[in-house]
Amino acid sequence: MTMEEKTMKCERVYEGRIINVRVDTVELPDKKYSKREIVEHPGAVGIIPITSDKKIILVKQFRKPVEDILLEIPAGKIEPKEEPYICALRELEEETGFKTDTVEKLLEFYTTPGFSNEIIHIYLAENLKEGIANPDEDENIDVVELSIEEAMEKINIGEIKDAKTIIAILTYFNLYKYK
Amino acid sequence: MTMEEKTMKCERVYEGRIINVRVDTVELPDKKYSKREIVEHPGAVGIIPITSDKKIILVKQFRKPVEDILLEIPAGKIEPKEEPYICALRELEEETGFKTDTVEKLLEFYTTPGFSNEIIHIYLAENLKEGIANPDEDENIDVVELSIEEAMEKINIGEIKDAKTIIAILTYFNLYKYK
Repeated sequence: MTMEEKTMKCERVYEGRIINVRVDTVELPDKKYSKREIVEHPGAVGIIPITSDKKIILVKQFRKPVEDILLEIPAGKIEPKEEPYICALRELEEETGFKTDTVEKLLEFYTTPGFSNEIIHIYLAENLKEGIANPDEDENIDVVELSIEEAMEKINIGEIKDAKTIIAILTYFNLYKYK
Repeated sequence: MTMEEKTMKCERVYEGRIINVRVDTVELPDKKYSKREIVEHPGAVGIIPITSDKKIILVKQFRKPVEDILLEIPAGKIEPKEEPYICALRELEEETGFKTDTVEKLLEFYTTPGFSNEIIHIYLAENLKEGIANPDEDENIDVVELSIEEAMEKINIGEIKDAKTIIAILTYFNLYKYK
């Protein structure tokens, strides 16, 4: 039996700056109807930048949806027609001031496939050169460096609470140990 | 300098079954105004169920927002006034048929703090007893068992693409190895 859900009706309920919202009426495999609330997002990248002395560079910023200051990997949404790795190089420099020539893709994942199509591509950035940060006008960002052990500890004690950051650090930790 | 963003205006743009959406006009630390699009979500739990022979139980289901069948840990949203661990016991049984008396909290995180307040609590479930699955009317779920090594491989090759599932498996893998 197929699991797919055919779209019978699509109602667009919000068109915004970063997200759009629609409600799809779907036909389930048993022919009954249901509704799916869907947040459309352009996709994003996250970068785990590693310095020459093996420190992870993180950014601290206030996140209005959760009313808290979070410690995260540098990240940002993909601009129209932008290649994800170009977005990674751009966001790394804008948010932290660090530049590099190449990034290595680690993985990609859906953040919340139950209600959004957002996909995040995670890149490893090494061989960093210092430059000047240039965050967006409405971004207030502090840059923080942690050792891998410190970052793992902050996940364990709940001080790092952002999904993409946890995935990037755990993935890098496993890579690093088995290198 | 504080990083916080004061709410100057709040416009509710959508009230739905699982999510609500609002647009906050905020005052930034430099006194300029900006807008924040925020998806309100009641929060969720995810459960990593481990059988007596150390297999991980996952569920396969179609996810309309990404138009794909995903392999995920059992999960579900928290009902009004429900304790997260009660929700974990309930969702485990509803989606997989497996029951247990207690669950152990592993961690919690925000899935997308840039545009949503969704928090997910992850629990480890062991000492499972078989029962009868009873998914929601609009859920079509297949249950799959994988060894830890198979699950790690599926993350590495991109067959597991769901953030909460990646976090639960990587966290369990690290725990398990150091037990």
